[in-house]
Amino acid sequence: MKKLVNDPKNVVDEAVAGFGAAHADIVRVSLDPVFIVRADAPVAGKVGIVSGGGSGHEPLHGGFVGSGMLDAAVPGAVFTSPTPDPILAATKAVDGGAGVLHIVKNYTGDVLNFETAADLAEADEIEVRTVIVNDDVAVKDSLYTAGRRGVAGTVLVEKIAGAAAERGDDLTNVATVAEKVIGQVRSMGVALTPCVVPHAGEPSFTLADDEIEIGIGIHGEPGRERIKLEPADAIVDRILGPILDDIPYASGDKVLLFVNGMGGTPQVELYIVFRRAAEVLAERGIEVTRTLVGNFTTSLEMQGMSITILKLDDELTALWDAPVHTAALRWGK
Amino acid sequence: MKKLVNDPKNVVDEAVAGFGAAHADIVRVSLDPVFIVRADAPVAGKVGIVSGGGSGHEPLHGGFVGSGMLDAAVPGAVFTSPTPDPILAATKAVDGGAGVLHIVKNYTGDVLNFETAADLAEADEIEVRTVIVNDDVAVKDSLYTAGRRGVAGTVLVEKIAGAAAERGDDLTNVATVAEKVIGQVRSMGVALTPCVVPHAGEPSFTLADDEIEIGIGIHGEPGRERIKLEPADAIVDRILGPILDDIPYASGDKVLLFVNGMGGTPQVELYIVFRRAAEVLAERGIEVTRTLVGNFTTSLEMQGMSITILKLDDELTALWDAPVHTAALRWGK
Repeated sequence: MKKLVNDPKNVVDEAVAGFGAAHADIVRVSLDPVFIVRADAPVAGKVGIVSGGGSGHEPLHGGFVGSGMLDAAVPGAVFTSPTPDPILAATKAVDGGAGVLHIVKNYTGDVLNFETAADLAEADEIEVRTVIVNDDVAVKDSLYTAGRRGVAGTVLVEKIAGAAAERGDDLTNVATVAEKVIGQVRSMGVALTPCVVPHAGEPSFTLADDEIEIGIGIHGEPGRERIKLEPADAIVDRILGPILDDIPYASGDKVLLFVNGMGGTPQVELYIVFRRAAEVLAERGIEVTRTLVGNFTTSLEMQGMSITILKLDDELTALWDAPVHTAALRWGK
Repeated sequence: MKKLVNDPKNVVDEAVAGFGAAHADIVRVSLDPVFIVRADAPVAGKVGIVSGGGSGHEPLHGGFVGSGMLDAAVPGAVFTSPTPDPILAATKAVDGGAGVLHIVKNYTGDVLNFETAADLAEADEIEVRTVIVNDDVAVKDSLYTAGRRGVAGTVLVEKIAGAAAERGDDLTNVATVAEKVIGQVRSMGVALTPCVVPHAGEPSFTLADDEIEIGIGIHGEPGRERIKLEPADAIVDRILGPILDDIPYASGDKVLLFVNGMGGTPQVELYIVFRRAAEVLAERGIEVTRTLVGNFTTSLEMQGMSITILKLDDELTALWDAPVHTAALRWGK
């Protein structure tokens, strides 16, 4: 294993400490228990938004803490759910009296631990609502999941729900906006190479030199099939099909097209993918009105990418465009 | 070779086309010859700023085209200098009547091709000034270089010179600001793995499973030495020493600390590096007042990182803080 780490068991603590030092204008970090909150938390009268999950997917979620997006992120060990304690602590730290929304990717561990933390918070008289993101169309059930997995679409849920909270929506409305995004966002990915979890020291799966995994999970969970490497355009076509078939699209529909790098993919490749995806959408009369390209929901150094499409309307577009100031997404301020 | 590409010889064209489609609000692209300009180019009365070089280092340079930074970027083939023709075309496309600054990384091919393009532009009565970035302290001369190489410090030169041009400085002043940054910025990198140039199909060098290259160039050129893998903190200490020894620092000095990923390095590792670098600087009484962490000057999928330190004063800090709106760096708007 070749990594820029010290003791593998300190990876998350040291990374979070570094993150806090690098972005002290945006966040504060706690190391015991480990969580990240926006620098001005709690914001009185605003709905707080907390997300979290295993580390190794950065900038998800800590990179999205800040004005207009998340109030807190709770990173677990690499590819391991955080326990209820830090989730509860983060929930308390961002409670501004208007309740807290938990945005949870659909993995069994995350769902259970966030649920326990929500129960404990409610016992402390903090109102909590939870939404579950399950945007991955690749597989119905998976290694760590009952139902579909939550993947890169989570970034869009966090941005848009964050904007709703920032404009002053109440907890019910923020949750409704989040559910609306979840209803309209779909993703699917592909892996060219596996990744190595630092404390494991070995790749969690292997792929032959000419083999790729279609429908990969963000922890390297199996997807739909392993096939021989194909040209980028053919891979894009394979992935876009199931995404576009999953909810109805009509000519004239507007979408946000998000090409997400898995961590180790050169940017030129992501733009080659974007080019083909935009071409396919244009052929179907679907208008790409917003875009996002880059490493936003990663699997450590995995090479590969995912495509996420969110069907937009005026409300979601306006919330997407609203100012955001986080380490990984920033505009309007 | 496992890459998300179609025909390897179309990598740059397709990536630039995708980049143009993804960021049509910020840039326009030309595919024959290949260059990228800000959407509103030329800006009348403003000094135009052009940079460029071999592709494979994205987001450098195309990701930095936009308001407050570059007016144009000229990508060559992967790891290959662009020829004078596209540089000349880009120079003409951004000439707003106040002259054009060429920001060139110190590689022999880039220096010669930009020089030829500048001569041709002058023959067309466009005033051109050129600055050469040579921030890499690792080696004196290198595989493609007489003198030091230009690496990630280029991002800071482009941002700060871009802010000077945006506030209305004349060509002489913009060049002076760029030279000031070049005088005060130093970098050095490390590689854990090589990368594969698409049209070559093979890694340009090899490293044993337990070996890293200290002082690596951004095309995989040899650095100072190959050593056994060490803990991240020890690697940071090795790299920071030569950077800090190269120009005098006094306790109380303010700096921008920039930890740059080489493309394939997980973000947690970059923050582990940042943490140690900030610690070392604090021990020396050097105050980190601005930060940048992420993949900004890459070598395709290479794993590794570089550290860049820019000594700041009030002028440079204000220019760094000025609004910028590009695909890869954005704030203040």
